[in-house]
Amino acid sequence: MEPKALQQYLHDHIPLSAAMQVEVLAVNEEGVTLKAPLGPNINHRDTVFGGSASALAILAGWSLVHSRLRELGIESRVVIQKNTMHHDLPVPGEFSARSFVDGKERWARFLRALERKGRARVVVSATLEHGGAVVGRFSGQFVALDGWSTEATGGGSG
Amino acid sequence: MEPKALQQYLHDHIPLSAAMQVEVLAVNEEGVTLKAPLGPNINHRDTVFGGSASALAILAGWSLVHSRLRELGIESRVVIQKNTMHHDLPVPGEFSARSFVDGKERWARFLRALERKGRARVVVSATLEHGGAVVGRFSGQFVALDGWSTEATGGGSG
Repeated sequence: MEPKALQQYLHDHIPLSAAMQVEVLAVNEEGVTLKAPLGPNINHRDTVFGGSASALAILAGWSLVHSRLRELGIESRVVIQKNTMHHDLPVPGEFSARSFVDGKERWARFLRALERKGRARVVVSATLEHGGAVVGRFSGQFVALDGWSTEATGGGSG
Repeated sequence: MEPKALQQYLHDHIPLSAAMQVEVLAVNEEGVTLKAPLGPNINHRDTVFGGSASALAILAGWSLVHSRLRELGIESRVVIQKNTMHHDLPVPGEFSARSFVDGKERWARFLRALERKGRARVVVSATLEHGGAVVGRFSGQFVALDGWSTEATGGGSG
């Protein structure tokens, strides 16, 4: 998936990503890198609002699963079930989130389960960075559901 | 703190809260209740974006600590250090976040530590609700720092 196409998809379908002025920097084998400026994401201390930090990391994690499945021609719905964010340092400017899946076997297991059961979970990590330093750490559990799975399976606000 | 005053403060200092159209419904002894409409917080599945859910819960948690300290005349800086969100169900419309501190002793301990050391942590919970049902659960660790504490103490993106 091309960075420009992913950015357009996010802005069109998730308006908060446009309000945050999210840009897609890279989509590659390792994962997805997004960035956002301080302005629309500022807080009362002139640093990045914790909700913006969490939201950028969620978008980077979701984009990894979404783009990898599209590359494989798999049209699953991808939603988030759980996420944890550690805010290690205040962020006084532009910030980025770089997502990755820890371990190749984890992703392979996810794909096998999805093929077998039409539903599978995967944990995606992301690091939040500012000026070349890691300022936050994210972990999110995403679930992919085949098109024929219904809302009755529950879980996930996407 | 009056709901209208808190809402104005949030919109003025955290522009993402205005983009999300966050409203303050209640500020009372139990905690703070915020709500937001689906429109600006929608995702690719026409339900609430997980980043908006996390951000509303963070705002509800932060507002609880901020408003309670202001009532006591304490001018501490309040920032978030860590947060976890469980997205239990998809949210197809307007949603609210209601924050609370689990146990009176927990809050009392926090105030004693803040008075003694000028820096203290407290865990704030929140439930995300839609149409009268709980659709998500949040837990956030916030730190309050006295005005004379410097950025060198680290942690927290606010």
